[in-house]
Amino acid sequence: MEKIKKILSNIDDNIGDDIDILIDFLKIKSISTIPEYSQECFKAAEWLKKHLQSFGLNTIIYESEGHPIVYCEYVSDKEDTKTILFYGHYDVQPVDPIELWNSDPFTPTITEIDGQECIVARGASDDKGQLLTFVQAIKYFIDEYGELPFSMKLIIEGEEECGSKTLPKFLDEYRDKLSANIAYVCDTSMWDKDTPAITRSLRGLLSEEFEIIGPNRDLHSGEYGGVAWNPIRIISDIISKIYTDSGEVAIEGFYDGVKEVDKNILESWNNLNFNRKEYLLKIGQETSSGEKNRSIFEQTWSRPTFEINGILGGYTDQGTKTVIPSKASAKITCRLVGNQEPDKIIDNIHSYINKKLPEGVVVNFKGSDYCKAIEFDTNSYYFKSASLAIEEEWDVPPVYTGGGGSIPIVEVFKSMLNIDTVLVGFALGDDRIHSPNEKYNVLSYTKGIKTWVRIIEKYI
Amino acid sequence: MEKIKKILSNIDDNIGDDIDILIDFLKIKSISTIPEYSQECFKAAEWLKKHLQSFGLNTIIYESEGHPIVYCEYVSDKEDTKTILFYGHYDVQPVDPIELWNSDPFTPTITEIDGQECIVARGASDDKGQLLTFVQAIKYFIDEYGELPFSMKLIIEGEEECGSKTLPKFLDEYRDKLSANIAYVCDTSMWDKDTPAITRSLRGLLSEEFEIIGPNRDLHSGEYGGVAWNPIRIISDIISKIYTDSGEVAIEGFYDGVKEVDKNILESWNNLNFNRKEYLLKIGQETSSGEKNRSIFEQTWSRPTFEINGILGGYTDQGTKTVIPSKASAKITCRLVGNQEPDKIIDNIHSYINKKLPEGVVVNFKGSDYCKAIEFDTNSYYFKSASLAIEEEWDVPPVYTGGGGSIPIVEVFKSMLNIDTVLVGFALGDDRIHSPNEKYNVLSYTKGIKTWVRIIEKYI
Repeated sequence: MEKIKKILSNIDDNIGDDIDILIDFLKIKSISTIPEYSQECFKAAEWLKKHLQSFGLNTIIYESEGHPIVYCEYVSDKEDTKTILFYGHYDVQPVDPIELWNSDPFTPTITEIDGQECIVARGASDDKGQLLTFVQAIKYFIDEYGELPFSMKLIIEGEEECGSKTLPKFLDEYRDKLSANIAYVCDTSMWDKDTPAITRSLRGLLSEEFEIIGPNRDLHSGEYGGVAWNPIRIISDIISKIYTDSGEVAIEGFYDGVKEVDKNILESWNNLNFNRKEYLLKIGQETSSGEKNRSIFEQTWSRPTFEINGILGGYTDQGTKTVIPSKASAKITCRLVGNQEPDKIIDNIHSYINKKLPEGVVVNFKGSDYCKAIEFDTNSYYFKSASLAIEEEWDVPPVYTGGGGSIPIVEVFKSMLNIDTVLVGFALGDDRIHSPNEKYNVLSYTKGIKTWVRIIEKYI
Repeated sequence: MEKIKKILSNIDDNIGDDIDILIDFLKIKSISTIPEYSQECFKAAEWLKKHLQSFGLNTIIYESEGHPIVYCEYVSDKEDTKTILFYGHYDVQPVDPIELWNSDPFTPTITEIDGQECIVARGASDDKGQLLTFVQAIKYFIDEYGELPFSMKLIIEGEEECGSKTLPKFLDEYRDKLSANIAYVCDTSMWDKDTPAITRSLRGLLSEEFEIIGPNRDLHSGEYGGVAWNPIRIISDIISKIYTDSGEVAIEGFYDGVKEVDKNILESWNNLNFNRKEYLLKIGQETSSGEKNRSIFEQTWSRPTFEINGILGGYTDQGTKTVIPSKASAKITCRLVGNQEPDKIIDNIHSYINKKLPEGVVVNFKGSDYCKAIEFDTNSYYFKSASLAIEEEWDVPPVYTGGGGSIPIVEVFKSMLNIDTVLVGFALGDDRIHSPNEKYNVLSYTKGIKTWVRIIEKYI
């Protein structure tokens, strides 16, 4: 207990050094999507390798066709220790539109924004600042204890912003080395600057495309209007009746496997500082389209959806054409949650559509694809201990949020290595990631480092 | 009575000459849509002028920018005679695909098809053969009587197949000369080779286009799926609920002004030689989409329709995009009948759509257009006398059919000159108009001439 207090106080004393290290790292123009910057990506990987080696950690650079991966390993000599996997990415987004930046994106500046001291630079939040929170925590821990209380694998890739193509190859080659009890990823946000968060679930995705064929050719509406089965009418009817008046999806069995969120988590969502009206106004809406008895949080984090992403039929150019088209088509995706089984849902979608067809009208399905939802057990040891550590640092427990969409690395860890992930991040909604004037709050950085120290301490 | 018998017998005796005249006319390549053939169009007009002048009729050629109009006038010196307007067109469709013709399209040949003697050539049916039925009838009548029993205006244009651009200009300039009690147009079909027909109504047309705006920008379905008002869902719901389960249009007041067809006409439709199953199979359907308690004839001739001619929203290219689009749009047309008032219907469509919008969702109407339906009183003198004359010639009364779409000239006569039209034609469904191997039955031609003689006789 004494040692931890000493580390936390060391961090406060040395924050200037930690900021200098981040600034040094942020100067590297490691834009992964633009080929001209590949040397800079290599430079960032080298920087990390040197930095990790400076605390005595065994670090290599894994090279393949894309940008290199920094891989660092620490093996504990104690018995019964856990194995921990850390993940971050050193690559950053392009800086365009450069004219909207108030300072050079690769000349980090410290400035006050809304009363908060911030570091402004491309990658300050996504993900250089965030990944250094756990890297610096490891450094402070080793400095004080001379060791880590677990075995550790640390992966920092350079292609997160451009599709992580090298990663699966690396994971496959290193599969034997990479078994771990849990993964920690630092690439997500807090709820607000006072409320830390752990992302507990990520919705899955299912896609399908279908085409309705009415008459066997395009017809003239004067001649056949009143007799021809207009496929636009049929496809509209199919889509319309997917939804009940209260916003539910009416397809049989659609909600099978959907779990209700624990009451205490639901309660924590309802207690969040959230202005529903403002949130909706930002997307130009006055009401929400989703299930009527569900909050915005449930609608976007813990409930499945059925969306039509595209529809096309008949004449769509300038002016009028009195055509009854032969075909109309739609693209659909569903966001999945809990244990929804994509295969069953696809079957049910097919039979729902088939049942809606008038005699003789035909549907062609173009082929479906999916990835399942991910939902972690927040009652597991790793979530509980992380939650405790976070509460100690921030004086409030983290809110267990949900991710509306997927985070590929989490799915890869789950599907390739069967490792759950605790998503802890200190970014803020106004960090302007991917946009001009990206920033990271100094408080996110320092309290982030301290949070990881407390999480690591729990393994002692 | 004696004179009529003599004329009819003259026609039988001289049918070879009449066919020669038609063959001569058909040799002229008066394709109006291809500029290279404009001299041929002029030649056809000259041919007609000469031919009409040969029976002593005052005939001129009206020239403007497009192809010339042949205009012929006959003024009766008797008191209280009616004034009759005849209309036909000498221009023909292009001959492509030429390789599918069994003989040269402009070298007319007489051949037997399905046991019927036919003249095969481009324009044989549409409209050179048809227009010569009334021209030759006039000739025979003048030959025998030395005069006509009415005053007459005869218009034969050369741009029917390419938009009739010159005609409104001509009608406007000649407005004072063109007042008439009734117009006769010979450009329509019989029901079948044994059943003559008069087209008693033409459906009108109303067009509108609208766009639904949900969120104020395209959104990511992971982030906003479950909350965002997907405009494709909204537009589908709007379209779906336009129709009742029994195929009616559910928009308020839509059927105001729709008249039920007279029982005897309905009965005549039901007695027609018609194979519903075959008709539907030809367009690849097993059932009809329209109002459940209505026959195909009613659905296409006497009932209004509401069609979506085009729909577009979101991502419609290859593959998947998890977008919730900001906008979706649809193009609609309605076929109108009876006294349906387009302005009121447009208002009702607007308010129907507006009522269907969730709070905050917006619709933009792109602007509507319309032409009203045309429906003639079959109990009028002109329909009754034409019907009688037709029955005398064909031994069965004509069926009063409806036109599913519009025939521009009929609307122009009505709107510009306030003249009703009796649409009598002797074409057949298998005449292959606009297609290779167009033909006109010799019986259509000879009995057509005789029918017009009988119609003219009624004015004595």
